Amino acid sequence: MQEIGVGIIGTGFMGKTHALAYRAVAGVFPESLRPKLVAVADIDEDAAKRAAAQFGFARASSDWKSLVTDPAVEVVSITTPNRVHKEQALAAIAAGKHVHCEKPIAPRAADAKIMMEAAEAAGVVTQVGFNYIKNPILGLARSMIVAGELGDIVSFRGIHAEDYMADADVPYNWRVDPSGGGGAIADIGSHIIGMSRFLLGPIVEVIADLRTVVGSRPVSPGAAERRKVEVDDIGRAIVRFERGCSGSIEANWVALGRKMQLGFEVTGTKGTLVFSQERLNELHFYRAGANPREAGFVRIEAGPQHAPYGNFIVAPGHQLGFNELKTIEVADFLRAIAGGEQKGPDFREAWEIQKIIDTAIQSSKERRWLAVS
Amino acid sequence: MQEIGVGIIGTGFMGKTHALAYRAVAGVFPESLRPKLVAVADIDEDAAKRAAAQFGFARASSDWKSLVTDPAVEVVSITTPNRVHKEQALAAIAAGKHVHCEKPIAPRAADAKIMMEAAEAAGVVTQVGFNYIKNPILGLARSMIVAGELGDIVSFRGIHAEDYMADADVPYNWRVDPSGGGGAIADIGSHIIGMSRFLLGPIVEVIADLRTVVGSRPVSPGAAERRKVEVDDIGRAIVRFERGCSGSIEANWVALGRKMQLGFEVTGTKGTLVFSQERLNELHFYRAGANPREAGFVRIEAGPQHAPYGNFIVAPGHQLGFNELKTIEVADFLRAIAGGEQKGPDFREAWEIQKIIDTAIQSSKERRWLAVS
Amino acid sequence: MQEIGVGIIGTGFMGKTHALAYRAVAGVFPESLRPKLVAVADIDEDAAKRAAAQFGFARASSDWKSLVTDPAVEVVSITTPNRVHKEQALAAIAAGKHVHCEKPIAPRAADAKIMMEAAEAAGVVTQVGFNYIKNPILGLARSMIVAGELGDIVSFRGIHAEDYMADADVPYNWRVDPSGGGGAIADIGSHIIGMSRFLLGPIVEVIADLRTVVGSRPVSPGAAERRKVEVDDIGRAIVRFERGCSGSIEANWVALGRKMQLGFEVTGTKGTLVFSQERLNELHFYRAGANPREAGFVRIEAGPQHAPYGNFIVAPGHQLGFNELKTIEVADFLRAIAGGEQKGPDFREAWEIQKIIDTAIQSSKERRWLAVS
Amino acid sequence: MQEIGVGIIGTGFMGKTHALAYRAVAGVFPESLRPKLVAVADIDEDAAKRAAAQFGFARASSDWKSLVTDPAVEVVSITTPNRVHKEQALAAIAAGKHVHCEKPIAPRAADAKIMMEAAEAAGVVTQVGFNYIKNPILGLARSMIVAGELGDIVSFRGIHAEDYMADADVPYNWRVDPSGGGGAIADIGSHIIGMSRFLLGPIVEVIADLRTVVGSRPVSPGAAERRKVEVDDIGRAIVRFERGCSGSIEANWVALGRKMQLGFEVTGTKGTLVFSQERLNELHFYRAGANPREAGFVRIEAGPQHAPYGNFIVAPGHQLGFNELKTIEVADFLRAIAGGEQKGPDFREAWEIQKIIDTAIQSSKERRWLAVS
Repeated sequence: MQEIGVGIIGTGFMGKTHALAYRAVAGVFPESLRPKLVAVADIDEDAAKRAAAQFGFARASSDWKSLVTDPAVEVVSITTPNRVHKEQALAAIAAGKHVHCEKPIAPRAADAKIMMEAAEAAGVVTQVGFNYIKNPILGLARSMIVAGELGDIVSFRGIHAEDYMADADVPYNWRVDPSGGGGAIADIGSHIIGMSRFLLGPIVEVIADLRTVVGSRPVSPGAAERRKVEVDDIGRAIVRFERGCSGSIEANWVALGRKMQLGFEVTGTKGTLVFSQERLNELHFYRAGANPREAGFVRIEAGPQHAPYGNFIVAPGHQLGFNELKTIEVADFLRAIAGGEQKGPDFREAWEIQKIIDTAIQSSKERRWLAVS
Repeated sequence: MQEIGVGIIGTGFMGKTHALAYRAVAGVFPESLRPKLVAVADIDEDAAKRAAAQFGFARASSDWKSLVTDPAVEVVSITTPNRVHKEQALAAIAAGKHVHCEKPIAPRAADAKIMMEAAEAAGVVTQVGFNYIKNPILGLARSMIVAGELGDIVSFRGIHAEDYMADADVPYNWRVDPSGGGGAIADIGSHIIGMSRFLLGPIVEVIADLRTVVGSRPVSPGAAERRKVEVDDIGRAIVRFERGCSGSIEANWVALGRKMQLGFEVTGTKGTLVFSQERLNELHFYRAGANPREAGFVRIEAGPQHAPYGNFIVAPGHQLGFNELKTIEVADFLRAIAGGEQKGPDFREAWEIQKIIDTAIQSSKERRWLAVS
Repeated sequence: MQEIGVGIIGTGFMGKTHALAYRAVAGVFPESLRPKLVAVADIDEDAAKRAAAQFGFARASSDWKSLVTDPAVEVVSITTPNRVHKEQALAAIAAGKHVHCEKPIAPRAADAKIMMEAAEAAGVVTQVGFNYIKNPILGLARSMIVAGELGDIVSFRGIHAEDYMADADVPYNWRVDPSGGGGAIADIGSHIIGMSRFLLGPIVEVIADLRTVVGSRPVSPGAAERRKVEVDDIGRAIVRFERGCSGSIEANWVALGRKMQLGFEVTGTKGTLVFSQERLNELHFYRAGANPREAGFVRIEAGPQHAPYGNFIVAPGHQLGFNELKTIEVADFLRAIAGGEQKGPDFREAWEIQKIIDTAIQSSKERRWLAVS
Repeated sequence: MQEIGVGIIGTGFMGKTHALAYRAVAGVFPESLRPKLVAVADIDEDAAKRAAAQFGFARASSDWKSLVTDPAVEVVSITTPNRVHKEQALAAIAAGKHVHCEKPIAPRAADAKIMMEAAEAAGVVTQVGFNYIKNPILGLARSMIVAGELGDIVSFRGIHAEDYMADADVPYNWRVDPSGGGGAIADIGSHIIGMSRFLLGPIVEVIADLRTVVGSRPVSPGAAERRKVEVDDIGRAIVRFERGCSGSIEANWVALGRKMQLGFEVTGTKGTLVFSQERLNELHFYRAGANPREAGFVRIEAGPQHAPYGNFIVAPGHQLGFNELKTIEVADFLRAIAGGEQKGPDFREAWEIQKIIDTAIQSSKERRWLAVS
C-alpha cells in the first residue's frame, strides 16, 4: 500500500500515543496508507531526539515550523498543549498538510471555527483526538441507536470523571491556564460532550454550573508559593438535544479514586445502553419486551463481530486496550485521506463540541440557560 | 416490654410493608415497644379485612376517621396516596396520635409545613417513610462523612431511577395526578433528595429541568381514551449545598431496565463513597493516601459491625433485604416515642425535602436558579 | 387460618433466625398455618428466657425434653450444635412432632438414615435448614434446568467459601469437633452439595481432597493452650452426577475476605447460569443462539415475577434478605404439614446429602474415587 | 538500538498476534532490540504473502525450513498447530536461532523435554507464549505473594473456560486431534497451570478428571459425516503444590457464554487475591487486619505504578489490551536475548507445565492421584 509521511509535534503523553498508533496502523489495517515516520518536533530538543530513536522518526528537532513545511511530511499530528494548537494547525493547513490534532483543538469556539474554515478551504483532511468514540463497542451502541433499536431516546446521562487534579498540590500547569480555555469541562468534558453527540446528535441548549474546588496551586512542584486557579474543577450541565430528549453531563477532574469514569446511560422507549470506559470492552443493553422472568441487562463483550475489533484480534474475549482505540482513530483518518469515508471527528465536529463548552462556560457565568449558537 | 397500639391506613404496597415491619420489630429489637396491631383501614373494606386476617389486626374497616380516633390506637401509619396524607395526618395529630406517614407527606411544602407545625404543637412523634436511609451501610457512609474521613466534600452525584412508568400504556393514576404534587421528582426524587440531606445536610440552591416524556396515558388499564400528563417523568437538578459543595440529582421513572437505581457518589478531599441500592449491602470506599500500588475502591459488605445489621443476623455476608430497612425505620420511630433518640426523618425533615422539590418544580418553570427558601 | 404450636430448641444464630421466620411467616403467606410460639429451650436458661421475651414464646426452659413432649408443641425446631440433633430429633419424632432441623442433621449418614426412617415411620413432616435454595431466583434457575432451557447439562462448578475460621486464633469449638462430623465440607459444603442436587439431581461418584489448614486452635478464647484440629478447613471434590455431567465442589471456611461466596456456574448445551449468594437477588443467564452482536450474560434481578418474591414485596428491585429465605423455608414446611406440596428438603434429602459428605471424607482418606452408596 | 532479524512461521490468529507484537515492541520499550521483520512462512503461500504485505516482512514463502536457516533470521517465532512445533523448533535450534514458540510447545512432555534439552545445549534463548502472565497486574500479584504479603498460601482455585468448542458443529480440527496432545486441558489448561506455577511454584501431585462432552464433530464445516472426538472438552483437577497448599484447576472449552474466563482466587493467611482475564486490568485484594468497619476487597486498577504498564500509557485508567500482553512477552524475550534477565517462560518451564498436563491426562485414565514426576 502507498506510504504517507507523518510528522508529530509534541512528545508527551499524547505524542507517544500518536507515535505508537502511526507505527501500528498498517499492521492492523492492511488496506491502510502506510505511515512513514518522517519527523518529530518538541520544544525540548532532547525529548524530540529520544522520541525519534524510540519510534523511528527520520528527523527530530525543536522547530515545529520546519516540520510543518517539510515536503516529506504529508500529515501533521499536533499533541502540544491546547493553547498552541491553533497556530500550529493553521501553519500546517497553510502548508497543505492533513492535520491530526489533539482535543480540544482550541481554547475557544471562535478559534476552532477559524481552524475549521481554514482546513475546509484548503481541502485538507482533519482528525481530532476524541479517541474513546473509536471503541468498536461504542460503534455498536451508535448503530443500535441510529437503527432505532432503542426506540425514541428519552434520557442521557454522561460523565467523565478522573482524579488527576484532585491533589491540591498538583502544581499550576497548562491545564489550568485560562488562556487554554476551560478546566475540566474542556479537558475531559469535551470527551463526554463529543460522545453524546456521537450517539445522539446536536445539543441545542445548556445550563451549566462550573466550580473551582482547588482554589490555588503551587507555582511549581513543591513550591510554597501558590497561584490562583480560575478554571473549573467540576462542570455540571443539563442539556437539551435537538432530537428532543434531555440529558445531563458532568466533567470532573477532582473525582478522587476515579481513573477513567467516562461513561453514559442512554434510555429510549425500547431499550437502554450503559457504558463505562472503566470496562471498555463491555456494553450493557436492556431491551424492552423480553420475557419478564428472564429480562435484564445483557453484558455484551467486545468481539470480532464488532468491527474493527477483528482487525486486532480474531477471537472474542481478548479485549482491546486504550492504545488500540488510537490506532482505529489513525486508521479512520488515513482512510479519509485516501479518499474513503470521512468518519471524523474532524475540525468541524471539534468546533461544534467547542461551542457547547463555550456555551457551558458562559451559562455558568450568567447562571442561566443558553442556546448553543 | 410495653405494648403500643398501631393502626394502619391503606393496604397497598406500603400498607403491607408497614404491617410486616410492625409485626417484625419487637423480635429484632428486644428493647422496642411491642406493637399491638389494633386496626387497619382501607377505602376498600374487603381489602382491609383481608389485611386484618393476614397480619393479625384486631379490627378492619373502610373508615380511616374512626381508626385515628380509636382510643386503642396510639400510632397511626398512613400509607395512602400522597394527596390524602395531609387530611389524615392532621386528624391523627388532632387525636394526639404519633404519626408514621409515607413520603412525600404532602403535595406541596406549604401543606407539609402545616402538618409539621401541627405535630410539633401537639407534641406527637412523627416518622416519614424514607426507608432507604435506614440501611446500616448508609449509616456507615454518613458516619464517615460526619467524622471527616472524606475530608471536605467537593462533589455529590445522586440518582433515583426506575422504570415503573416507562411503558406509555401504564394508565393514568394518582402518581401522575398533579393534585398530588410533582411526578418523578416527588415520588422518587424525594428519596435521593432526602438521602443527599442525610449525608451532606441542607441544599440551598437549585436549578432544575423537569420533563414529561409520556405525554398522555390511558384513563384506565387498556382504555383507548388517554389523558394528558402534566407532571414530570424525568427531573434533573444541579444543586448547591449549604456546606459549600455542589452536586447533581436525577429522578427518573421511565428509566427502562432500571428497577432500583437509587445511588450516589460523594467525593471529598480525602475519600470517595459510592453506593447503589441495586446492591444495597455494599458500600464502595476510596481513601486517599494509600500505597498507589494497591490503592482502589474497597467493596465493604454489610455485617454486624454496622449496627443495627447485627440485630437481624449475627454473621456477615448474609444480607438484609428491603423489608428490614422498613423494620429499622419502625424501630427508630418507636424508640423516639419511648423517649429515646429522635433519628427521624420526621415531618420537619419531610418539609425540608418538600421545599427542595417545590423549588425544583418552580425552577424548571422559571428556567432559572432558585434559592430554597 | 389455623394455628400451629411451635417450640424451638437453641437460641443462638439459627435459633434467632428460626424465631424470626416463624414470627414472620403468616404475615407474608396469608394461607399459611399461623405459628403460635409455645416454647423455647436453651441449655442456658437465661438465654431461653431472653429469647422468650424477645420473640414472644409463652414458655422458656433449659429442658429441651419437656419441650418436645409439650402437648401444645406441634412443631419442634432444632437449632443446636450438630452432634445433638439426632437425639433431639428422635425424641421429637417419638412424640409425634413435625421436625425442623438445622443442617447437617447428623454427623454421619448412618445417623441421618436412622432419623429419616424414624420420621417416615412416624409420618411426621421434616424440614432441614438448607435455606439458600429457597431463594426465588434459584427457583427460577431450577425451573429453567428442569424445563430443558439449558439443554443437556455438561458442567457444574460449585463453591461455598467463607472466612469465619480463617483466623488461627478462633478457638476450638463444636464446628471442629470430629464427633460432629466433618469440618468445612459438612458445615458449609452441605449447602453447596444440597444446592447441586436441587439443581441437577443425584451425585453418584466422588473424589475428594480434604485439608486441615489451621492445625491447632486455642482451647478457649485467648488461651495459650491449643488443641489439635482433625477436621477439614478446605474440602475439594470432583463429582459425577447421575444425569451424566461432571462437576466440582469446594467448601472452604478459611477463605479470607469471603463472607458468603456460595455460588455456582452450571453450563448446558443451550445455556449457562451463574449465581453467587454475594448478590443473592441476581441470576446471570446466557442463552445460546442469540444474535452474536448483542449476545451476553443477562443479569436477571429478582422480582415479583419470581414467586414467592411477590409475597414479600410487590415491586421489583427492592430485594429480599437472608432472613426472608428462612421465612420461605418455614412457609414450605408449614404448607407440607397442612397437607400441601412437600418441597423439602426433608430428612431423606438431608440423608442423601450426608452420604455425599461421608463419601467425600472417606474418599479423601482413601485418596480414590468412591461411589456414593 | 541494535536490530535483530525475525522470522515467523504461521499466519493464523497467533501468527498475526506475534507480528503485531514484534512490530510494536521497540516503540514501547526503547531499550529493546529492534526487530527487523525478515521472513514469514505459511503452508498457504498466499497467506504468507498477504502477511508479508500487511506486516512488512521482507520475504514470504511456504517453506518454513528455508526460513529457519535464513542467515538474516535470528529469532524464529512458531505459531503453527501444536503437533508441528517440535520439528520446527528443533530445526530452528539446530540452526542456532532463538525460538519463540506458542503453547503448548509439544503434545507430550517427553517431546518438550527433547526440545528443552536441545535449546539449552545450543545455548539459544527460548520463549513460550503464555502471554497472560505478562499482565502487569499479575506481576503485582506475584510480587505480593513472593514478598509474603498474603502470608502462607493455603488455597488456590484456577480456571480457564471459554466456549469456542461448545457448538457440537464446530468441525474436527487440530485442536481435537489426539496427536497434538490433550484437548482443553492442553489448549487452555496450560494457561491456568502456567499461571498457577507463576504465582505459587511447582505442582507435585494431581488427581484429574477429563471429560469429552461433544462425542463427535463434523469432518469439515457443514459436513454430515462426523468423526469421533477422543480428547477432553472439560478437564478438572485437584492439585497439591510443593509449597504445601492445595488447589483446584479447571479447563473447559465448552463453557457456553464464557469468552475468556481465565482467573484465580489465591488465599493466604494474611490476604487474598482474585483475578479474571475478563477484566484484565483489575486485581482484587483483601488484606487481613483492616478495620472491620471498612474492610473488604480492594479493586486495584492497573496503572503506571505497575511496570511495564507505563511503557504503554503514562496515565492510569486507560487500560492495556491483550495484544499488549504479547508485546511485553516479546520485550521480555528480546531482553533475554540481549543478555538481560531471563524472565521466561522458556522451554524448561513449558516442559514443567507439560508434565502436569500429561500427569493429569494419565491420572484421569487411571482414576487416581499421581505424582508429577
